[in-house]
Amino acid sequence: MSFRASVLTLYPEMFPGNLGMSMSGRAMERGDWSLSAHNIRDCATDKHRSVDDTPAGGGAGMVLRPDILGKAIDDVTEENDLRPRLLMSPRGKPLTQAKARELADGPGIVIVCGRFEGVDERVIEGRQLEEVSIGDYILSGGEVAAHVLLDSIVRLLPGVMGNKESGESESFENGLLEHPHYTRPVDFEGREIPAVLKSGNHKLIDQWRLEISEKITEERRPDLWQNYLKNNR
Amino acid sequence: MSFRASVLTLYPEMFPGNLGMSMSGRAMERGDWSLSAHNIRDCATDKHRSVDDTPAGGGAGMVLRPDILGKAIDDVTEENDLRPRLLMSPRGKPLTQAKARELADGPGIVIVCGRFEGVDERVIEGRQLEEVSIGDYILSGGEVAAHVLLDSIVRLLPGVMGNKESGESESFENGLLEHPHYTRPVDFEGREIPAVLKSGNHKLIDQWRLEISEKITEERRPDLWQNYLKNNR
Repeated sequence: MSFRASVLTLYPEMFPGNLGMSMSGRAMERGDWSLSAHNIRDCATDKHRSVDDTPAGGGAGMVLRPDILGKAIDDVTEENDLRPRLLMSPRGKPLTQAKARELADGPGIVIVCGRFEGVDERVIEGRQLEEVSIGDYILSGGEVAAHVLLDSIVRLLPGVMGNKESGESESFENGLLEHPHYTRPVDFEGREIPAVLKSGNHKLIDQWRLEISEKITEERRPDLWQNYLKNNR
Repeated sequence: MSFRASVLTLYPEMFPGNLGMSMSGRAMERGDWSLSAHNIRDCATDKHRSVDDTPAGGGAGMVLRPDILGKAIDDVTEENDLRPRLLMSPRGKPLTQAKARELADGPGIVIVCGRFEGVDERVIEGRQLEEVSIGDYILSGGEVAAHVLLDSIVRLLPGVMGNKESGESESFENGLLEHPHYTRPVDFEGREIPAVLKSGNHKLIDQWRLEISEKITEERRPDLWQNYLKNNR
């Protein structure tokens, strides 16, 4: 059975969006994964189809009601549905490449996209939603974050990436940022390709690439560098 | 003059995409910002319109040529163009809310979306591209990352967010993850809204929210917590 994604959103027209194009779009056409988007508003019960209300205790913005969202989640999950349920939220655990791989190895995913000021905490507890963050910045809603999460997963599904090796020698897979790349022309505005890369000596090339990866990681990402030192030295 | 974004991509059809909808779409219609997408392939010079070549020194994947991308950048930037030039790249500096604010305060942005294995390092140097990462995971290309970056910026532009206060009391703005939210109904499947939020005592409510924000941040994000302690105690 292929990877099955269900998205709960107030903007179902945002899906598949760009996920229907390029690599993920071709994978969808081949049946490597499927995506359905469900409008949370369809679970509203009043004539205005309202889904949110003012925050208890006061404050700015509106909060997504737990009863409406709870019903929306129940409607897209079957009994014994083993798919993890994620809520895209800046309060969540940061998404990592390892997490994307873990999710890609599973049966699929249910994604809740927050909007407004937030989601009532009780539905997060009651429906065991796992809060996941794509980074330390605020977005207009969870939809663009859901796109990121799905893109990171889909490219790891079996058969999706043409060149398997290309998926394994990348940034983060070995705990380092990737080395610089060069290609033709040999001279670009007076800047030349480093001589070692033209040497044909693959041992030297690998060594150069590792050293420069380490240097870049140390300079740019002291946090990753400290982890790398712990795990590799 | 309103905020002007130019995107260089091999998939111009991915723009505006979802950025043409919801909050950012309405802001675009009002003229608060503008977006143009340019196909890097239009700068190819051979009859196959090729833009990439094999990596110098060997290895998997293909690398975007510096001459083609350099010309594409030159074509969208005027003389004295003060807009920062960003390359979406997992090797970049992590995007933060502070960076989104800094960019929103500027005249606009030129965004290069990488694809394939990467971009030739010499065009990053020669065109002074600033590498920015939206998180520690790999995407199929820079396009979805560009969507994230633009979404985070556009909501901060003057006039875009209806409720100004809503933009300031959020996660990250004070160095903490946001407190939980609650709204009606008072009882959701046996779970009740915390009593303090119904007290009407705003001093107590603010104190409760701060304490629980601190608790959640300490539990979920020891990295943010350590920074917060340094800055606030």
